[in-house]
Amino acid sequence: MYITLKKTVTEKEVQYIIDLLERNKLGALYIEDLGNKKIGIMGSKDRIPKTDIEKLEYVEEIHIISKPYKFASREFKKEDTVVEINGVKIGGGHFALMGGPCSVESEEMILETAKGVKKAGGQILRGGAFKPRTSPYDFQGLGEEGLKYLREAGDKYGLLVVTEVMDSKDIPLVAKYADILQVGARNMQNFSLLKELGQCGKPVLLKRGMSATIREFLMAGEYLIAFGNRDVILCERGIRTFETMTRNTVDINAIALIKEKSHLPIIIDASHGTGRKSLVEPITLAGIMAGADGAMVEVHNNPACALSDGEQSLDVAEFEKFAKKFFKLVELKKELI
Amino acid sequence: MYITLKKTVTEKEVQYIIDLLERNKLGALYIEDLGNKKIGIMGSKDRIPKTDIEKLEYVEEIHIISKPYKFASREFKKEDTVVEINGVKIGGGHFALMGGPCSVESEEMILETAKGVKKAGGQILRGGAFKPRTSPYDFQGLGEEGLKYLREAGDKYGLLVVTEVMDSKDIPLVAKYADILQVGARNMQNFSLLKELGQCGKPVLLKRGMSATIREFLMAGEYLIAFGNRDVILCERGIRTFETMTRNTVDINAIALIKEKSHLPIIIDASHGTGRKSLVEPITLAGIMAGADGAMVEVHNNPACALSDGEQSLDVAEFEKFAKKFFKLVELKKELI
Amino acid sequence: MYITLKKTVTEKEVQYIIDLLERNKLGALYIEDLGNKKIGIMGSKDRIPKTDIEKLEYVEEIHIISKPYKFASREFKKEDTVVEINGVKIGGGHFALMGGPCSVESEEMILETAKGVKKAGGQILRGGAFKPRTSPYDFQGLGEEGLKYLREAGDKYGLLVVTEVMDSKDIPLVAKYADILQVGARNMQNFSLLKELGQCGKPVLLKRGMSATIREFLMAGEYLIAFGNRDVILCERGIRTFETMTRNTVDINAIALIKEKSHLPIIIDASHGTGRKSLVEPITLAGIMAGADGAMVEVHNNPACALSDGEQSLDVAEFEKFAKKFFKLVELKKELI
Amino acid sequence: MYITLKKTVTEKEVQYIIDLLERNKLGALYIEDLGNKKIGIMGSKDRIPKTDIEKLEYVEEIHIISKPYKFASREFKKEDTVVEINGVKIGGGHFALMGGPCSVESEEMILETAKGVKKAGGQILRGGAFKPRTSPYDFQGLGEEGLKYLREAGDKYGLLVVTEVMDSKDIPLVAKYADILQVGARNMQNFSLLKELGQCGKPVLLKRGMSATIREFLMAGEYLIAFGNRDVILCERGIRTFETMTRNTVDINAIALIKEKSHLPIIIDASHGTGRKSLVEPITLAGIMAGADGAMVEVHNNPACALSDGEQSLDVAEFEKFAKKFFKLVELKKELI
Repeated sequence: MYITLKKTVTEKEVQYIIDLLERNKLGALYIEDLGNKKIGIMGSKDRIPKTDIEKLEYVEEIHIISKPYKFASREFKKEDTVVEINGVKIGGGHFALMGGPCSVESEEMILETAKGVKKAGGQILRGGAFKPRTSPYDFQGLGEEGLKYLREAGDKYGLLVVTEVMDSKDIPLVAKYADILQVGARNMQNFSLLKELGQCGKPVLLKRGMSATIREFLMAGEYLIAFGNRDVILCERGIRTFETMTRNTVDINAIALIKEKSHLPIIIDASHGTGRKSLVEPITLAGIMAGADGAMVEVHNNPACALSDGEQSLDVAEFEKFAKKFFKLVELKKELI
Repeated sequence: MYITLKKTVTEKEVQYIIDLLERNKLGALYIEDLGNKKIGIMGSKDRIPKTDIEKLEYVEEIHIISKPYKFASREFKKEDTVVEINGVKIGGGHFALMGGPCSVESEEMILETAKGVKKAGGQILRGGAFKPRTSPYDFQGLGEEGLKYLREAGDKYGLLVVTEVMDSKDIPLVAKYADILQVGARNMQNFSLLKELGQCGKPVLLKRGMSATIREFLMAGEYLIAFGNRDVILCERGIRTFETMTRNTVDINAIALIKEKSHLPIIIDASHGTGRKSLVEPITLAGIMAGADGAMVEVHNNPACALSDGEQSLDVAEFEKFAKKFFKLVELKKELI
Repeated sequence: MYITLKKTVTEKEVQYIIDLLERNKLGALYIEDLGNKKIGIMGSKDRIPKTDIEKLEYVEEIHIISKPYKFASREFKKEDTVVEINGVKIGGGHFALMGGPCSVESEEMILETAKGVKKAGGQILRGGAFKPRTSPYDFQGLGEEGLKYLREAGDKYGLLVVTEVMDSKDIPLVAKYADILQVGARNMQNFSLLKELGQCGKPVLLKRGMSATIREFLMAGEYLIAFGNRDVILCERGIRTFETMTRNTVDINAIALIKEKSHLPIIIDASHGTGRKSLVEPITLAGIMAGADGAMVEVHNNPACALSDGEQSLDVAEFEKFAKKFFKLVELKKELI
Repeated sequence: MYITLKKTVTEKEVQYIIDLLERNKLGALYIEDLGNKKIGIMGSKDRIPKTDIEKLEYVEEIHIISKPYKFASREFKKEDTVVEINGVKIGGGHFALMGGPCSVESEEMILETAKGVKKAGGQILRGGAFKPRTSPYDFQGLGEEGLKYLREAGDKYGLLVVTEVMDSKDIPLVAKYADILQVGARNMQNFSLLKELGQCGKPVLLKRGMSATIREFLMAGEYLIAFGNRDVILCERGIRTFETMTRNTVDINAIALIKEKSHLPIIIDASHGTGRKSLVEPITLAGIMAGADGAMVEVHNNPACALSDGEQSLDVAEFEKFAKKFFKLVELKKELI
């Protein structure tokens, strides 16, 4: 449910409603949307003081949101959400390119890779320090050491830094180093983690679970918003199907549909999604055409020696070639609209 | 297995090899590929007269094809296949736009729709006369009457005509009216139908089965080639996954991968694939970026009254708008390469 | 829609209604169900002469069937359908065991296998003469020669014979030799084939398509009934999922649900379904517990030399051991009810 | 890798090897398997002091385990693992029946339900206190209050208690009340949680992820063992497929295959798996035939009023009827072997 307010409403009046809702143990989410002022209401319907609200003269109308994803929906907010981090914008016509290795393997490799990402025009450096691995016997990431190298590389080359957090107890540690906290596909419905990330004060990159429906994906985003975080970036990275020639099936339909149903930015990760280096370019570009607001690409300064996912990583030169087409398409796309 | 021939080889010498193979009960497929002359061999390995072939001075080399799809593979033929029908080309940089209703419902409706398709720049008119319907109680198509209307509409507006054939016994009838014979998703592994279509003398549009792997899809194309038909156009139209917000999941990864592995042209059908009118444009354009050589789109002169699939059909005006973007993107894409 | 009749209704009166319906271009299906007499009506609702029917005194009531599968549903017929072929019964508490090779490879092998199937207590011999193969270069079956060997083996050992028909034009040929005509998974929605099998005069074994929903599976059965065939046996043989350790995922849930929603007999094919010899026994027995009315099992006199699917075939001795447990469970199951 | 020891080996000698391994930063897992003494080795191959080990006279042989799931595999341990908790045994011919509500909703309801579960012969009471819910606005469970009620009900009726833990930080709290800690399907690859549960000192019930392959499922079990927990019970609860008539597709093939590949006990949860009350009995019984060592069933004292999953819950009387068949089948099954 949400309230639309008259355009003349004052800050004080907005605050009055928020207080009123909170006294009734309801959450309130104030937004401006295409010039309209709205307050989203979270909590049990029967606690909403409807008559009290309706009699306020600066309240225009009370609306019901039909979708289960309430504050993530276009029904609530028509305008694209733009997530802005230190001057880098994602969403609403702003495209972001994220590159970097699956895992931070050493100080040197992340520095070299970061240099390549920057040179190619990337704005955000990715790299795992805590790695979810199917086998307990595989390399699990460098932990805090990896976070430090990542931050160092980001700072040196003027790149934002995104990395995965796997457990709610690690949030403070990861948040100390990263600009964006990533939720991996396997944790998309780790609701405990989502709730705490709602309150972490940093943007969150939420990867779609391997068998999550589009609705569940949006509901996971809703958790983050409901628990206090408006800076949610979705990431389509492929779903599990019967197909075995690609690692997963990147669901480009989902990108187009999510842009229709939600105001949240969404990016595409074709590296994990397809598991094939040769498909990174065509699938990323396809994703941009379908509406994606950016891309995450695996880049490694030396893919042949990567500790994980080498076969799907671009090297620095390949990434540079790819990035040229990426930014070119972003420009060309404007001519189409 | 295939043979590469010296460039100086004469027609007579080529024929000599073909005869030699046929005497050994082997099939032979002569092609020119990037200026190279090749003969593909079909049949049991142990019947191949290797020593006889090797001693011919105009034979360069005998090659093994590692993929199970032999003559559909890039290993055999590197150059894109261009299917050409009455001046309309598909593949190898030529893009085709096919539009039309799910079913031909009446003479008037197909004429009106054809007019719209032509005006928008479409080259091929689609429309079902024999309809595979999940329920025996649903409208099954007009049969030959529908074929006649379709042909009439195609002729009147200078459009090629594509329509589905559901049973091998109907091939002569459908071939009488259509320029391209379509194999529906449910019949992709109707091998009996494929074998006879291999010999039908007309191009075939082969839709991917709802749960066909990419390999099986290419193998179905291989059937057509192996039984004599080189004019094979593939069509990605979505696979079945757990997702329910889209009718199927259009597998754009498959398009990019098939362009890598095969020389056959492939088009995208986002109407059946997504089941949502609003997704036709973004998903078709995404498909083009991923490498598709064309698109098939449901268009109906009056979608609200369609006997089937109305909710996913564009009306004539919407199709015109869509087609503008389609042809614009096709142009822009050239700048990216 | 169907009509219930008074118990006192005469044959002549039943015929009167059937004629009335046919004059209105409606199909009529007369059944007795738990002692009740019913006439199912097929065709367009608005052609039903409701007032004419209602005024007949021996008509009790007109009923609507809510499910899309009309005559395959328990709503229409509560009593289990028993398909009876030369004394062998399937359904309604009668269990059938079918065994035999994937393909009939030679006269000798089918005779030896048939001997083993008979000895183990099997009632029906399976074996393919027309084989749907993913590759055009794989063994496609012996054709009519295979049908002859199969019939000979069946006759020699007193076994019924079931084999696949892949194309409507082959129905007369296959029907000449087989007691039961099988529709393979890839042809479950070959509606043209289904329609003609509806009129073939022999029982049909309908395999579930690899990505067919339960509803679509029942609808395919409905096609057979709607076109005139009441002797329909369903066969669950696995669906396509992301799992790769089994060839398909045998959907035992579907067996239990189909027994609830439909009166048709259903058997389980764990050989094709799992692709693993070691799973044939546990999965078949599980299927019986879930409600299956029988099983189809791959048996080969010499699995190591099989031309196809050897790794999932039992040899004759293994089948005998398996069959003992099968018939034992069938007995024990009665104690549970 | 693992070592087999001579039967005459002494405790001291076993300890010597364990110390040797630990000095080399390797984990050691001592087991007795069908009377054989074995030590499993965890850690990097190149740290294994092979020559030191081989020269010990009480060492018989060093073995390689080919499967990625090492200590969960039958290659390492042939004998079925029996998890025993306060006299209740699961695995190796011992069957456990777990019943209870989706969520603990109140003290009264869990007491009444527990009474019914006990009366029917169930040994273990299930009930959620921390609930993973797709929507942040749905009932999230009673938390510690729920745990208390569950414990109270278990104690009152002499039932063990199993409940889900969703976050590693909640393990101490949940372990205080529960006899078995459950990992939900959505957390099957929450490796952080698995690692800490490896050291929690209580048995763990590990549910299969909705899109987890059988291999990944076993690897998740391997995490628990590798981090120190031998009391692992697997639970098949359905995978996500295209089918919509059942909530999930219970993969009974997985049960049979896991019994073949692993020594761990596995139970079946047909309530969540099918989402249909009417399928609980046939699918659970099918699971037992396929090799399951027990079942988890949703039981609610008043399903119509359940806060979640009411439509799939049995009431107390239905559960009693079901339990009779369950225990009867368990007996009958012995006659089959």
